Amino acid sequence: MREVAVIGVGQTKIDEHWDKSLRELAGDAALAAMAEAQVAHVESVYVGNMLSDVSNLQAHLGSMVADWIGQRFTDAIKIESACSSGSAAFRAGYLAVASGEVDLALVVGVEKMTDSPGSEITTGLATAADADWEVDHGLSFVALNALIMKRYMYEYGWKGMDFAEFSINAHANAVHNPHARFQKPIDMNSFIKSAMICDPINLMDASPIGDGAAAAILAPSDMLPTGAPKIIVAGSSAATDTIAIHHRKQPLRLAAAEKSVQKAYAQAGIGPEEISVFEYHDAFTIMAALSLEAAGFAEPGKGPELAKAGAIKVHGRIPVATFGGLKARGHPVGATGMFQIVEVVHQLRGEAGEIQVARQDFGMTQNIGGSGSNIVTHILKRVN
Amino acid sequence: MREVAVIGVGQTKIDEHWDKSLRELAGDAALAAMAEAQVAHVESVYVGNMLSDVSNLQAHLGSMVADWIGQRFTDAIKIESACSSGSAAFRAGYLAVASGEVDLALVVGVEKMTDSPGSEITTGLATAADADWEVDHGLSFVALNALIMKRYMYEYGWKGMDFAEFSINAHANAVHNPHARFQKPIDMNSFIKSAMICDPINLMDASPIGDGAAAAILAPSDMLPTGAPKIIVAGSSAATDTIAIHHRKQPLRLAAAEKSVQKAYAQAGIGPEEISVFEYHDAFTIMAALSLEAAGFAEPGKGPELAKAGAIKVHGRIPVATFGGLKARGHPVGATGMFQIVEVVHQLRGEAGEIQVARQDFGMTQNIGGSGSNIVTHILKRVN
Repeated sequence: MREVAVIGVGQTKIDEHWDKSLRELAGDAALAAMAEAQVAHVESVYVGNMLSDVSNLQAHLGSMVADWIGQRFTDAIKIESACSSGSAAFRAGYLAVASGEVDLALVVGVEKMTDSPGSEITTGLATAADADWEVDHGLSFVALNALIMKRYMYEYGWKGMDFAEFSINAHANAVHNPHARFQKPIDMNSFIKSAMICDPINLMDASPIGDGAAAAILAPSDMLPTGAPKIIVAGSSAATDTIAIHHRKQPLRLAAAEKSVQKAYAQAGIGPEEISVFEYHDAFTIMAALSLEAAGFAEPGKGPELAKAGAIKVHGRIPVATFGGLKARGHPVGATGMFQIVEVVHQLRGEAGEIQVARQDFGMTQNIGGSGSNIVTHILKRVN
Repeated sequence: MREVAVIGVGQTKIDEHWDKSLRELAGDAALAAMAEAQVAHVESVYVGNMLSDVSNLQAHLGSMVADWIGQRFTDAIKIESACSSGSAAFRAGYLAVASGEVDLALVVGVEKMTDSPGSEITTGLATAADADWEVDHGLSFVALNALIMKRYMYEYGWKGMDFAEFSINAHANAVHNPHARFQKPIDMNSFIKSAMICDPINLMDASPIGDGAAAAILAPSDMLPTGAPKIIVAGSSAATDTIAIHHRKQPLRLAAAEKSVQKAYAQAGIGPEEISVFEYHDAFTIMAALSLEAAGFAEPGKGPELAKAGAIKVHGRIPVATFGGLKARGHPVGATGMFQIVEVVHQLRGEAGEIQVARQDFGMTQNIGGSGSNIVTHILKRVN
């Protein structure tokens, strides 16, 4: 397989975009990535999206995006794996370029959620869970995560406020990200006072939905001029687990994350200590803790310790959510994985300003579909 | 890229499956393909599906299928490109194996449509069209095809009954296919007497929805024993066109089909005369005519001539819909492309019995997403 580089990225702000349609959001991010990559044409388009059938009454986003951005006649499909759709699409684009099938691939993650009635979005998000054995019994998606969090607190003795630093850190970083949905800090007081959504998940444990798109252009790295720094894909791996959480022997371990991250580390030839920035999937604070543990940054049950010790801050041992994470940058579900990729690219290029991490070598993204049932890990590497 | 072979296939009957859930249908086809291929594990799962979010309130089919068939921890995603989702998934599996990323890939197309209220399916099918510029103005999916057919009849002077032989041929073949939804013949009289659905499309011009799944296992061809016949992927190509038909300069030409079929012919090193069986996308008789023209079997406007002359019959010049096509085998939308693949594999192996075509060399499938906006062509080749 060929070595693959990210040669351009683009993103919209995550917001309630009342003035932008689904295709406009995708187009804005895609055309920005193409402009940055200085390419006028691509050969393939991979769209990561979860909910447009339900929330926008529009399927067929491959054709829609390719058409809208003037790339008619390209090969274009949508990839879906619930909330990890964005990075699953990135992985499809990576494989297409690595295989030699195409030389220029566009990957765009897009979601437009806020102009649909609330019940449609709640129903849509629940389609990530098991329709027959979870949702049919009345469980919403947040309820599934609440069950996991409650058990985690019981097993390891944590209290709700022990998860606060994940959210406080995310909001502190988002202040410096103009694309973030919430560019304002929170503190322990606002965390504790926030409304309970689904015990023990309160409003500040949960990430907000949003509208937005993020995109990248992929090409064989040997097409780039030698000498100039480049960002290559050093690891790409995905793994599944049971779709229903009650079928897991260890519901407090993200086994699919462990599988995918171990494979990605092996591909990149590194371990967790080499990772200089980790854009994880903090859809809920419990997922932040479990991701850190699965990726080897903490022992099982010890995730909150990292947060409480400040290790996850921009200048800590393992910076996470450096642009605000799902919690404060926002979580437009099928687009999130591509926001993670774009953010790591900016970190590795040294373009992150106030939220720049110290080292520009290896950056990792981890994107979770369902309640831990489809997990995609990518390691990007800066080659000077 | 490595040469890729189809080493096992499986399919369910297309029917109203009141006793089978979405996962059971997918599982039945997938496990049949694995049994035929004599493999107990696969590395990746690609699910082609269009409508499950809407019709089954279940997204995330990659995880659902991998879990159900005992392939937990594999890499598994859903691919969607409207009605060409099945063959888009096959193409993703092909690229994954061709790239060297995986050695054993499972592709399964699945759709369960008949236990949803009719309005949900009509709304769901319309998501293949342009939500903003077509559907929002009241056009259903059949209405879009009716507009194309009406213009075609006006331009080329055909009458409605000139399209009858496409459907009569499909039903004649389906009699011999135990997996077909309709295993009964029709004649000119029943065609003419059938109810008008959306002028000029009558009930016998239109394919029926259905529930069903079809699957294939892909592997590098050099893993197979030398000497034994094998079915390899000789061409794989996809192309898009505008999603809205009014944006096309020539709405009576399937430009995306022309692009994808020409590329597939070039990859296989052949032309239309070498194709011994063509499983085309006869969702409506007008699409049958346009597909034959796009693939080089007839001049523009001359598709119905082939049908009227008997050239599309099993022993004609270019056999089509040999297992009944979308019209009589049935059209479970996201699964259809995989039924086409499975059928061509059976033809090339010489297993088609009463509907066996004469030559076992090159077989072609063409799967159309939207009203001609996303078209995937595959050429399979028997190597002895």
